[in-house]
Amino acid sequence: MIDLIAFDADDTLWHNERFFKLTKESFAGLLADYAQADHLEERLLAAEKRNLSRYGFGVKGFTLSMIETAIEVSGADLPASVVKQILDAGRDMLDHPVELLPGVGETIDRLSKTHRLVIVTKGDLFHQERKIAASGIADYFAGVEIVSDKSPETYRSVFARHGAGPGGGLMIGNSLKSDVIPAIEAGGWGVYVPHELTWVIERAEAPREHPRYREIPAVSALPALIEGLTGA
Amino acid sequence: MIDLIAFDADDTLWHNERFFKLTKESFAGLLADYAQADHLEERLLAAEKRNLSRYGFGVKGFTLSMIETAIEVSGADLPASVVKQILDAGRDMLDHPVELLPGVGETIDRLSKTHRLVIVTKGDLFHQERKIAASGIADYFAGVEIVSDKSPETYRSVFARHGAGPGGGLMIGNSLKSDVIPAIEAGGWGVYVPHELTWVIERAEAPREHPRYREIPAVSALPALIEGLTGA
Repeated sequence: MIDLIAFDADDTLWHNERFFKLTKESFAGLLADYAQADHLEERLLAAEKRNLSRYGFGVKGFTLSMIETAIEVSGADLPASVVKQILDAGRDMLDHPVELLPGVGETIDRLSKTHRLVIVTKGDLFHQERKIAASGIADYFAGVEIVSDKSPETYRSVFARHGAGPGGGLMIGNSLKSDVIPAIEAGGWGVYVPHELTWVIERAEAPREHPRYREIPAVSALPALIEGLTGA
Repeated sequence: MIDLIAFDADDTLWHNERFFKLTKESFAGLLADYAQADHLEERLLAAEKRNLSRYGFGVKGFTLSMIETAIEVSGADLPASVVKQILDAGRDMLDHPVELLPGVGETIDRLSKTHRLVIVTKGDLFHQERKIAASGIADYFAGVEIVSDKSPETYRSVFARHGAGPGGGLMIGNSLKSDVIPAIEAGGWGVYVPHELTWVIERAEAPREHPRYREIPAVSALPALIEGLTGA
Protein backbone atom coordinates (compact mmCIF):
# COMPACT_ATOMS: atom_id res chain seq x y z
CA MET A 1 0.00 0.00 0.00
CA ILE A 2 2.69 2.51 1.01
CA ASP A 3 5.75 2.36 -1.26
CA LEU A 4 7.43 5.70 -0.50
CA ILE A 5 8.10 7.30 2.88
CA ALA A 6 9.16 10.96 2.85
CA PHE A 7 10.71 12.38 6.02
CA ASP A 8 11.00 15.94 7.15
CA ALA A 9 14.48 16.42 8.65
CA ASP A 10 14.70 19.20 11.28
CA ASP A 11 12.99 18.09 14.52
CA THR A 12 11.71 14.93 12.84
CA LEU A 13 14.99 13.08 12.24
CA TRP A 14 17.31 15.28 14.29
CA HIS A 15 17.29 18.13 16.79
CA ASN A 16 17.05 21.63 15.36
CA GLU A 17 14.67 23.98 17.16
CA ARG A 18 16.54 23.48 20.44
CA PHE A 19 19.50 25.29 18.86
CA PHE A 20 17.24 28.18 17.88
CA LYS A 21 15.85 28.24 21.42
CA LEU A 22 19.31 28.32 22.99
CA THR A 23 20.42 31.05 20.59
CA LYS A 24 17.30 33.11 21.34
CA GLU A 25 18.12 32.84 25.06
CA SER A 26 21.68 34.07 24.46
CA PHE A 27 20.28 36.83 22.25
CA ALA A 28 17.94 37.94 25.08
CA GLY A 29 20.94 38.01 27.42
CA LEU A 30 22.96 40.13 25.01
CA LEU A 31 20.14 42.65 24.64
CA ALA A 32 19.02 42.61 28.29
CA ASP A 33 19.98 46.28 28.73
CA TYR A 34 17.70 47.33 25.86
CA ALA A 35 14.63 45.09 25.89
CA GLN A 36 12.71 42.68 28.08
CA ALA A 37 12.95 39.09 26.90
CA ASP A 38 9.30 38.71 25.86
CA HIS A 39 9.24 42.01 23.97
CA LEU A 40 12.49 41.10 22.22
CA GLU A 41 11.14 37.70 21.21
CA GLU A 42 8.05 39.35 19.77
CA ARG A 43 10.16 41.83 17.76
CA LEU A 44 12.42 39.03 16.51
CA LEU A 45 9.45 36.94 15.36
CA ALA A 46 8.02 39.99 13.59
CA ALA A 47 11.36 40.51 11.81
CA GLU A 48 11.55 36.84 10.81
CA LYS A 49 8.03 36.96 9.36
CA ARG A 50 8.74 40.25 7.58
CA ASN A 51 11.94 38.85 6.06
CA LEU A 52 10.64 35.40 5.12
CA SER A 53 9.75 36.43 1.59
CA ARG A 54 13.31 37.65 1.01
CA TYR A 55 15.49 35.41 3.16
CA GLY A 56 13.49 32.18 3.10
CA PHE A 57 14.12 29.68 5.89
CA GLY A 58 17.41 28.96 7.61
CA VAL A 59 20.11 30.09 9.98
CA LYS A 60 21.63 32.84 7.80
CA GLY A 61 18.32 34.67 7.51
CA PHE A 62 17.70 34.14 11.23
CA THR A 63 21.09 35.70 12.03
CA LEU A 64 20.31 38.71 9.84
CA SER A 65 16.90 39.07 11.55
CA MET A 66 18.57 38.97 14.99
CA ILE A 67 20.92 41.79 13.99
CA GLU A 68 18.02 43.81 12.57
CA THR A 69 16.02 43.32 15.77
CA ALA A 70 18.99 44.25 17.98
CA ILE A 71 19.30 47.57 16.12
CA GLU A 72 15.54 48.09 16.30
CA VAL A 73 15.37 47.76 20.10
CA SER A 74 18.62 49.52 20.97
CA GLY A 75 18.87 52.20 18.31
CA ALA A 76 22.16 54.01 17.97
CA ASP A 77 23.38 52.61 21.31
CA LEU A 78 24.06 49.09 20.09
CA PRO A 79 27.75 48.26 20.64
CA ALA A 80 29.59 46.58 17.76
CA SER A 81 30.65 43.89 20.23
CA VAL A 82 27.02 42.75 20.52
CA VAL A 83 26.70 42.53 16.73
CA LYS A 84 29.86 40.44 16.69
CA GLN A 85 28.41 38.09 19.31
CA ILE A 86 25.24 37.67 17.24
CA LEU A 87 27.36 36.77 14.21
CA ASP A 88 29.25 34.25 16.36
CA ALA A 89 25.98 32.77 17.62
CA GLY A 90 24.78 32.30 14.04
CA ARG A 91 28.02 30.60 13.08
CA ASP A 92 27.77 28.31 16.11
CA MET A 93 24.32 27.23 14.95
CA LEU A 94 25.73 26.34 11.54
CA ASP A 95 28.47 24.30 13.21
CA HIS A 96 26.39 22.39 15.74
CA PRO A 97 26.69 18.60 15.50
CA VAL A 98 23.73 16.65 14.16
CA GLU A 99 22.00 14.63 16.90
CA LEU A 100 19.40 12.14 15.81
CA LEU A 101 16.15 12.02 17.78
CA PRO A 102 15.61 8.86 19.89
CA GLY A 103 14.97 5.69 17.87
CA VAL A 104 15.52 7.36 14.48
CA GLY A 105 18.63 5.41 13.48
CA GLU A 106 17.09 1.94 14.06
CA THR A 107 13.73 2.93 12.53
CA ILE A 108 15.29 4.25 9.34
CA ASP A 109 17.47 1.15 9.05
CA ARG A 110 14.41 -1.09 9.45
CA LEU A 111 12.13 0.83 7.06
CA SER A 112 14.84 1.09 4.40
CA LYS A 113 14.61 -2.70 3.96
CA THR A 114 10.95 -2.57 2.94
CA HIS A 115 10.32 0.93 1.57
CA ARG A 116 11.86 3.64 -0.54
CA LEU A 117 12.86 6.52 1.77
CA VAL A 118 13.46 10.16 0.87
CA ILE A 119 14.08 13.39 2.79
CA VAL A 120 12.06 16.54 2.02
CA THR A 121 13.40 19.55 3.89
CA LYS A 122 13.50 23.29 3.57
CA GLY A 123 16.09 25.80 4.72
CA ASP A 124 19.53 26.84 3.54
CA LEU A 125 20.59 24.45 0.77
CA PHE A 126 24.18 24.40 1.93
CA HIS A 127 23.45 23.91 5.63
CA GLN A 128 20.85 21.18 5.01
CA GLU A 129 23.31 19.28 2.80
CA ARG A 130 25.95 19.49 5.49
CA LYS A 131 23.53 18.21 8.13
CA ILE A 132 22.39 15.30 5.98
CA ALA A 133 26.02 14.37 5.28
CA ALA A 134 26.83 14.56 9.01
CA SER A 135 23.74 12.61 10.11
CA GLY A 136 25.22 9.17 9.53
CA ILE A 137 21.96 8.00 7.91
CA ALA A 138 22.27 9.67 4.49
CA ASP A 139 22.87 6.37 2.69
CA TYR A 140 19.44 5.01 3.64
CA PHE A 141 17.70 7.65 1.53
CA ALA A 142 17.11 7.19 -2.18
CA GLY A 143 16.63 10.92 -2.63
CA VAL A 144 16.98 14.23 -0.86
CA GLU A 145 14.84 17.20 -1.83
CA ILE A 146 15.86 20.54 -0.36
CA VAL A 147 13.05 22.92 -1.22
CA SER A 148 12.28 26.57 -0.57
CA ASP A 149 8.66 25.83 0.36
CA LYS A 150 6.51 22.78 1.04
CA SER A 151 3.30 23.03 -0.96
CA PRO A 152 0.92 20.31 -2.22
CA GLU A 153 2.73 20.69 -5.56
CA THR A 154 6.05 19.89 -3.84
CA TYR A 155 4.62 16.60 -2.56
CA ARG A 156 2.87 15.73 -5.82
CA SER A 157 6.23 16.07 -7.51
CA VAL A 158 8.09 14.07 -4.80
CA PHE A 159 5.50 11.25 -4.79
CA ALA A 160 5.59 11.05 -8.60
CA ARG A 161 9.36 11.24 -8.97
CA HIS A 162 10.38 8.83 -6.23
CA GLY A 163 7.35 6.59 -5.82
CA ALA A 164 4.37 5.13 -7.65
CA GLY A 165 2.22 8.22 -7.11
CA PRO A 166 0.46 10.00 -4.23
CA GLY A 167 -1.71 7.02 -3.15
CA GLY A 168 1.41 5.12 -2.06
CA GLY A 169 3.22 8.13 -0.63
CA LEU A 170 3.49 9.03 3.03
CA MET A 171 5.06 12.15 4.51
CA ILE A 172 6.03 12.33 8.17
CA GLY A 173 7.07 15.46 10.03
CA ASN A 174 6.63 17.74 13.00
CA SER A 175 4.98 20.57 11.07
CA LEU A 176 1.26 20.21 10.39
CA LYS A 177 1.48 23.23 8.11
CA SER A 178 4.44 22.19 5.96
CA ASP A 179 4.72 18.42 6.27
CA VAL A 180 1.32 16.93 7.01
CA ILE A 181 -1.47 19.03 5.49
CA PRO A 182 0.08 19.70 2.05
CA ALA A 183 1.06 16.00 1.71
CA ILE A 184 -2.56 14.99 2.36
CA GLU A 185 -3.73 17.66 -0.11
CA ALA A 186 -1.38 16.13 -2.66
CA GLY A 187 -3.20 12.81 -2.27
CA GLY A 188 -0.75 11.11 0.09
CA TRP A 189 -0.75 10.14 3.74
CA GLY A 190 0.26 12.74 6.32
CA VAL A 191 1.77 11.56 9.59
CA TYR A 192 2.25 14.10 12.36
CA VAL A 193 4.97 13.45 14.89
CA PRO A 194 4.74 16.38 17.33
CA HIS A 195 7.90 17.98 18.69
CA GLU A 196 7.76 19.99 21.89
CA LEU A 197 9.54 22.88 20.17
CA THR A 198 7.86 23.74 16.90
CA TRP A 199 8.31 27.19 15.44
CA VAL A 200 5.11 29.19 15.79
CA ILE A 201 5.04 29.84 12.02
CA GLU A 202 4.79 26.09 11.40
CA ARG A 203 1.73 25.48 13.58
CA ALA A 204 -1.71 24.63 12.18
CA GLU A 205 -4.89 22.79 13.08
CA ALA A 206 -4.62 19.00 12.79
CA PRO A 207 -6.96 17.54 10.13
CA ARG A 208 -8.09 14.87 12.62
CA GLU A 209 -11.09 13.76 10.61
CA HIS A 210 -9.15 13.08 7.43
CA PRO A 211 -8.85 9.37 6.55
CA ARG A 212 -5.20 9.75 5.49
CA TYR A 213 -4.13 11.67 8.62
CA ARG A 214 -2.31 9.94 11.49
CA GLU A 215 -0.46 11.12 14.59
CA ILE A 216 2.27 9.14 16.34
CA PRO A 217 4.39 10.08 19.37
CA ALA A 218 7.76 9.36 17.74
CA VAL A 219 9.35 8.22 14.47
CA SER A 220 9.94 4.81 16.12
CA ALA A 221 6.16 4.18 16.00
CA LEU A 222 6.13 4.45 12.19
CA PRO A 223 6.82 0.78 11.27
CA ALA A 224 3.84 -0.40 13.35
CA LEU A 225 1.63 2.32 11.87
CA ILE A 226 2.56 1.30 8.33
CA GLU A 227 1.97 -2.40 9.10
CA GLY A 228 -1.46 -1.45 10.40
CA LEU A 229 -2.25 0.52 7.21
CA THR A 230 -1.11 -2.35 5.00
CA GLY A 231 -3.11 -4.88 7.00
CA ALA A 232 -6.26 -2.74 6.79
CA MET B 1 25.43 15.47 -31.34
CA ILE B 2 24.47 17.87 -28.54
CA ASP B 3 21.07 17.04 -27.01
CA LEU B 4 21.23 18.92 -23.71
CA ILE B 5 22.38 22.49 -23.06
CA ALA B 6 22.94 23.46 -19.43
CA PHE B 7 23.21 27.16 -18.60
CA ASP B 8 24.77 28.86 -15.65
CA ALA B 9 22.46 31.68 -14.56
CA ASP B 10 24.23 34.58 -12.78
CA ASP B 11 26.27 36.63 -15.28
CA THR B 12 25.55 34.11 -18.02
CA LEU B 13 21.80 34.61 -18.48
CA TRP B 14 21.35 37.75 -16.38
CA HIS B 15 23.32 40.42 -14.55
CA ASN B 16 24.50 39.58 -11.07
CA GLU B 17 28.07 40.58 -10.24
CA ARG B 18 27.31 44.22 -11.07
CA PHE B 19 25.01 44.30 -8.03
CA PHE B 20 27.80 42.91 -5.86
CA LYS B 21 30.16 45.55 -7.31
CA LEU B 22 27.73 48.39 -6.60
CA THR B 23 27.14 47.11 -3.08
CA LYS B 24 30.89 46.83 -2.45
CA GLU B 25 31.26 50.45 -3.54
CA SER B 26 28.54 51.57 -1.12
CA PHE B 27 30.15 49.45 1.56
CA ALA B 28 33.50 51.20 0.97
CA GLY B 29 31.71 54.55 1.27
CA LEU B 30 30.08 53.54 4.56
CA LEU B 31 33.40 52.44 6.02
CA ALA B 32 35.51 55.26 4.54
CA ASP B 33 36.33 56.62 8.02
CA TYR B 34 37.77 53.28 9.09
CA ALA B 35 39.50 51.69 6.11
CA GLN B 36 40.86 52.49 2.68
CA ALA B 37 38.82 50.97 -0.13
CA ASP B 38 41.46 48.50 -1.32
CA HIS B 39 42.25 47.29 2.19
CA LEU B 40 38.54 46.90 2.93
CA GLU B 41 37.99 44.90 -0.25
CA GLU B 42 40.85 42.61 0.69
CA ARG B 43 39.42 42.05 4.19
CA LEU B 44 35.94 41.40 2.77
CA LEU B 45 37.27 38.85 0.29
CA ALA B 46 39.18 37.14 3.12
CA ALA B 47 35.96 36.98 5.18
CA GLU B 48 33.98 35.59 2.24
CA LYS B 49 36.56 32.86 1.65
CA ARG B 50 36.75 32.06 5.37
CA ASN B 51 32.96 31.78 5.59
CA LEU B 52 32.37 29.88 2.36
CA SER B 53 32.44 26.49 4.07
CA ARG B 54 29.68 27.62 6.47
CA TYR B 55 27.59 30.09 4.48
CA GLY B 56 27.97 28.71 0.96
CA PHE B 57 27.28 31.10 -1.92
CA GLY B 58 24.73 33.88 -2.05
CA VAL B 59 23.64 37.29 -0.87
CA LYS B 60 22.77 36.39 2.75
CA GLY B 61 26.26 35.04 3.42
CA PHE B 62 27.74 38.06 1.62
CA THR B 63 25.74 40.41 3.87
CA LEU B 64 26.95 38.59 7.00
CA SER B 65 30.55 38.79 5.71
CA MET B 66 30.18 42.55 5.13
CA ILE B 67 29.00 43.05 8.72
CA GLU B 68 31.85 40.90 10.02
CA THR B 69 34.38 42.89 7.98
CA ALA B 70 32.92 46.22 9.11
CA ILE B 71 33.43 45.20 12.75
CA GLU B 72 36.92 43.92 11.96
CA VAL B 73 38.12 47.20 10.46
CA SER B 74 36.35 49.60 12.83
CA GLY B 75 36.38 47.71 16.10
CA ALA B 76 34.20 49.05 18.89
CA ASP B 77 33.66 52.33 17.02
CA LEU B 78 31.23 50.95 14.44
CA PRO B 79 27.91 52.82 14.69
CA ALA B 80 24.74 50.72 14.64
CA SER B 81 23.51 52.96 11.81
CA VAL B 82 26.24 51.57 9.55
CA VAL B 83 25.23 47.99 10.39
CA LYS B 84 21.66 48.91 9.52
CA GLN B 85 22.78 50.32 6.17
CA ILE B 86 24.66 47.11 5.41
CA LEU B 87 21.50 45.09 6.17
CA ASP B 88 19.55 47.40 3.87
CA ALA B 89 22.13 46.98 1.11
CA GLY B 90 21.84 43.19 1.39
CA ARG B 91 18.06 43.38 1.18
CA ASP B 92 18.30 45.65 -1.87
CA MET B 93 20.45 43.03 -3.59
CA LEU B 94 17.78 40.40 -2.93
CA ASP B 95 15.15 42.72 -4.38
CA HIS B 96 16.93 43.85 -7.52
CA PRO B 97 15.05 43.16 -10.75
CA VAL B 98 16.36 40.45 -13.06
CA GLU B 99 17.90 41.91 -16.23
CA LEU B 100 18.76 39.48 -18.98
CA LEU B 101 22.12 39.90 -20.71
CA PRO B 102 21.96 41.11 -24.34
CA GLY B 103 20.59 38.54 -26.78
CA VAL B 104 19.73 35.97 -24.13
CA GLY B 105 15.94 36.02 -24.58
CA GLU B 106 16.05 35.37 -28.36
CA THR B 107 18.83 32.80 -28.09
CA ILE B 108 17.02 30.77 -25.45
CA ASP B 109 13.81 30.89 -27.46
CA ARG B 110 15.65 29.67 -30.57
CA LEU B 111 17.63 26.90 -28.85
CA SER B 112 14.57 25.64 -26.97
CA LYS B 113 13.08 24.56 -30.31
CA THR B 114 15.95 22.17 -31.06
CA HIS B 115 17.48 21.24 -27.69
CA ARG B 116 16.58 20.37 -24.15
CA LEU B 117 17.62 23.30 -21.93
CA VAL B 118 18.32 23.29 -18.19
CA ILE B 119 19.71 25.78 -15.67
CA VAL B 120 22.47 24.77 -13.24
CA THR B 121 23.15 27.46 -10.67
CA LYS B 122 24.47 27.79 -7.16
CA GLY B 123 23.66 30.28 -4.43
CA ASP B 124 20.77 30.76 -2.05
CA LEU B 125 18.00 28.34 -3.03
CA PHE B 126 15.27 30.84 -2.29
CA HIS B 127 16.89 33.79 -4.07
CA GLN B 128 17.79 31.75 -7.15
CA GLU B 129 14.21 30.45 -7.43
CA ARG B 130 12.88 34.00 -7.21
CA LYS B 131 15.28 35.19 -9.91
CA ILE B 132 14.38 32.33 -12.25
CA ALA B 133 10.67 33.03 -11.72
CA ALA B 134 11.24 36.74 -12.40
CA SER B 135 13.44 36.19 -15.47
CA GLY B 136 10.58 35.73 -17.93
CA ILE B 137 12.39 32.76 -19.54
CA ALA B 138 11.72 30.06 -16.90
CA ASP B 139 9.29 28.16 -19.14
CA TYR B 140 11.97 27.44 -21.75
CA PHE B 141 13.86 25.23 -19.30
CA ALA B 142 13.00 21.57 -18.78
CA GLY B 143 14.78 21.56 -15.46
CA VAL B 144 16.41 23.81 -12.90
CA GLU B 145 19.13 22.53 -10.61
CA ILE B 146 20.10 24.78 -7.73
CA VAL B 147 23.20 23.23 -6.22
CA SER B 148 25.56 24.07 -3.38
CA ASP B 149 28.65 23.33 -5.45
CA LYS B 150 29.46 22.59 -9.08
CA SER B 151 31.67 19.52 -9.29
CA PRO B 152 32.21 17.00 -12.12
CA GLU B 153 29.76 14.77 -10.19
CA THR B 154 27.14 17.55 -10.40
CA TYR B 155 27.42 17.62 -14.18
CA ARG B 156 27.54 13.82 -14.56
CA SER B 157 24.26 13.73 -12.68
CA VAL B 158 22.71 16.61 -14.69
CA PHE B 159 23.79 15.14 -18.06
CA ALA B 160 22.42 11.71 -17.05
CA ARG B 161 19.14 12.93 -15.58
CA HIS B 162 18.17 15.46 -18.24
CA GLY B 163 19.97 14.25 -21.34
CA ALA B 164 21.35 11.17 -23.04
CA GLY B 165 24.63 11.24 -21.11
CA PRO B 166 27.78 13.39 -20.93
CA GLY B 167 28.75 13.01 -24.62
CA GLY B 168 25.65 14.97 -25.67
CA GLY B 169 25.78 17.46 -22.81
CA LEU B 170 27.07 21.02 -23.02
CA MET B 171 27.47 23.47 -20.16
CA ILE B 172 27.89 27.19 -20.78
CA GLY B 173 28.85 29.76 -18.18
CA ASN B 174 31.10 32.62 -17.16
CA SER B 175 33.04 30.65 -14.56
CA LEU B 176 35.87 28.49 -15.87
CA LYS B 177 36.20 26.97 -12.40
CA SER B 178 32.55 26.09 -11.74
CA ASP B 179 30.88 25.88 -15.15
CA VAL B 180 33.42 24.93 -17.78
CA ILE B 181 36.19 22.76 -16.31
CA PRO B 182 34.02 20.40 -14.20
CA ALA B 183 31.57 19.92 -17.12
CA ILE B 184 34.48 18.88 -19.36
CA GLU B 185 35.78 16.59 -16.61
CA ALA B 186 32.33 15.01 -16.47
CA GLY B 187 32.67 14.11 -20.17
CA GLY B 188 30.62 16.96 -21.60
CA TRP B 189 31.38 20.10 -23.58
CA GLY B 190 32.39 23.23 -21.69
CA VAL B 191 31.67 26.62 -23.25
CA TYR B 192 33.17 29.69 -21.64
CA VAL B 193 31.37 32.99 -22.10
CA PRO B 194 33.53 35.53 -20.29
CA HIS B 195 31.91 38.31 -18.27
CA GLU B 196 33.86 41.42 -17.43
CA LEU B 197 32.98 41.04 -13.75
CA THR B 198 33.72 37.55 -12.55
CA TRP B 199 34.27 36.96 -8.85
CA VAL B 200 37.96 36.28 -8.18
CA ILE B 201 37.08 32.96 -6.47
CA GLU B 202 35.56 31.72 -9.75
CA ARG B 203 38.61 32.35 -11.90
CA ALA B 204 40.78 29.56 -13.32
CA GLU B 205 43.04 28.78 -16.28
CA ALA B 206 41.16 28.05 -19.51
CA PRO B 207 41.74 24.48 -20.80
CA ARG B 208 42.40 25.85 -24.27
CA GLU B 209 43.91 22.65 -25.64
CA HIS B 210 40.95 20.46 -24.69
CA PRO B 211 38.91 19.21 -27.68
CA ARG B 212 35.60 19.81 -25.84
CA TYR B 213 36.45 23.35 -24.73
CA ARG B 214 35.11 26.41 -26.55
CA GLU B 215 34.98 30.13 -25.84
CA ILE B 216 32.40 32.51 -27.26
CA PRO B 217 31.91 36.23 -26.67
CA ALA B 218 28.20 36.04 -25.75
CA VAL B 219 25.35 33.56 -25.31
CA SER B 220 23.99 34.77 -28.66
CA ALA B 221 26.93 33.02 -30.38
CA LEU B 222 25.86 29.63 -29.03
CA PRO B 223 23.49 28.50 -31.83
CA ALA B 224 26.22 28.97 -34.45
CA LEU B 225 28.76 27.17 -32.26
CA ILE B 226 26.41 24.19 -31.84
CA GLU B 227 25.64 24.09 -35.56
CA GLY B 228 29.38 24.00 -36.19
CA LEU B 229 29.87 21.12 -33.74
CA THR B 230 27.01 19.17 -35.28
CA GLY B 231 28.27 19.79 -38.79
CA ALA B 232 31.78 18.67 -37.84
